[in-house]
Amino acid sequence: MTREHLVHQIVVKKSFLCVGLDPDMKKIPAHLLQYDDPIFEFNKAIIDATSDLCVAYKPNIAFYECLGRKGWQSLEKTMDYIPQSMFTIADAKRGDIGNTSKKYADTFFEYLDFDAVTVAPYMGIDSVSPFLEYTDRWVILLGLTSNQGSDDFQQMKDSNGIPLYEKVISKAQEWGRPDNLMFVIGATHPDSFGTIRAMAQDYFFLVPGIGAQGGDLDMVVKSGRNPDMGLLVNSSRDIIYAGSGTDFQNDVRRKAMELQQKMAAHITL
Amino acid sequence: MTREHLVHQIVVKKSFLCVGLDPDMKKIPAHLLQYDDPIFEFNKAIIDATSDLCVAYKPNIAFYECLGRKGWQSLEKTMDYIPQSMFTIADAKRGDIGNTSKKYADTFFEYLDFDAVTVAPYMGIDSVSPFLEYTDRWVILLGLTSNQGSDDFQQMKDSNGIPLYEKVISKAQEWGRPDNLMFVIGATHPDSFGTIRAMAQDYFFLVPGIGAQGGDLDMVVKSGRNPDMGLLVNSSRDIIYAGSGTDFQNDVRRKAMELQQKMAAHITL
Repeated sequence: MTREHLVHQIVVKKSFLCVGLDPDMKKIPAHLLQYDDPIFEFNKAIIDATSDLCVAYKPNIAFYECLGRKGWQSLEKTMDYIPQSMFTIADAKRGDIGNTSKKYADTFFEYLDFDAVTVAPYMGIDSVSPFLEYTDRWVILLGLTSNQGSDDFQQMKDSNGIPLYEKVISKAQEWGRPDNLMFVIGATHPDSFGTIRAMAQDYFFLVPGIGAQGGDLDMVVKSGRNPDMGLLVNSSRDIIYAGSGTDFQNDVRRKAMELQQKMAAHITL
Repeated sequence: MTREHLVHQIVVKKSFLCVGLDPDMKKIPAHLLQYDDPIFEFNKAIIDATSDLCVAYKPNIAFYECLGRKGWQSLEKTMDYIPQSMFTIADAKRGDIGNTSKKYADTFFEYLDFDAVTVAPYMGIDSVSPFLEYTDRWVILLGLTSNQGSDDFQQMKDSNGIPLYEKVISKAQEWGRPDNLMFVIGATHPDSFGTIRAMAQDYFFLVPGIGAQGGDLDMVVKSGRNPDMGLLVNSSRDIIYAGSGTDFQNDVRRKAMELQQKMAAHITL
């Protein structure tokens, strides 16, 4: 998907919501377990309940992989079911040397037809550049993540006081462009959000960490928006596990709509 | 597998060779393409030709994932075929937040029954600790990798001149122990090898980068060995693509034996 198409979707839907599809057999509503493929049935219900309220879906690959071939099939069916107009993100956090990154690109961009894949920067350019060779596909590189462990290494400062995550965000702009590269910036770092936006003005940020993890949507918008909005704010568990009864779709939709309405108030494009 | 068992295997086989199983449909001998599962047939042949010469196999997960469900099945069959006495490493370089890392641990330790999985440190403790809760299973954490891109961030120095990869190696020893944690240290960094060994004396290192990438086995052993050897030296393409005819197993075995014999000369345990 092109950057223009993504921005257009945001304007039309008055939403920059990304729904994370992290289906867990132990958490999905019990009545779905009677189906042959409960994971797909769950995702299908989530997509039906939210597709007019969000612009992106982000399957977390770990939740499919752990079910082996069966999980892989659920993922394929989910990708087929997601409407064409949605931006799709493989949350895979891959990162390897060149020939291996190429295989991951084959997997996510060709075999599964995702628009974007999350990538970890530790191994440097070799982990990123093979993905950037695809037209209208995206790398979403980990910058400053929302978890507690982001303190362990991402905040390490060099002799000039520049933290690792800023180095990652600067360096990656030598490899990619605002139309094929985004950054993961956690909503749990309100003090850093504005600085990061100043460093990467034209880039989209994928923002996890609002809701349960403590991040605040208003802060994210205030410090993080750019003229094209430039934000995809993710919510996974808060939305997909909003209900557990046979009518869970209603709870899911209500929760997604709450967020979308807050977002709509900010969209002035 | 316990550390004692691994060391015992190294002594008995006079080898600390790890064979990387990176099967690529475009590179495997042409006569294998007639089989229903060429990837598995290729791996089976490699395992038959090398299992008395190496102590570990390391399937690179990208090469299976890119074939979808079919590739997943080849990986499962390969894992079933590898003899029980071998140390098995899922080269997956995963790294995510806690609940997702737990799912990856389910995948590699339970569903596929690997002894070890490679993990990327960028997201900190959350990416590592869920794997360490398993008994006799291992995290192999990226330290200083063998690729060119390792210069981009791993070598970044803090205000005391300590590079990021050293911070990773120090910090991770607060989380794991020599019986459940190893580090990936590339053979392409001869000047750093000794210092890294001094920082992590009792730990095993998984060492990529000898052969085609330019690393030297003698240097690795001289600077990197510890009293239990403490090394698993990997070779992937140099061994598995040593031949392309119907007799490729002979070439594969010859190449693996060359390396094993060089290793044997160093084993004085």
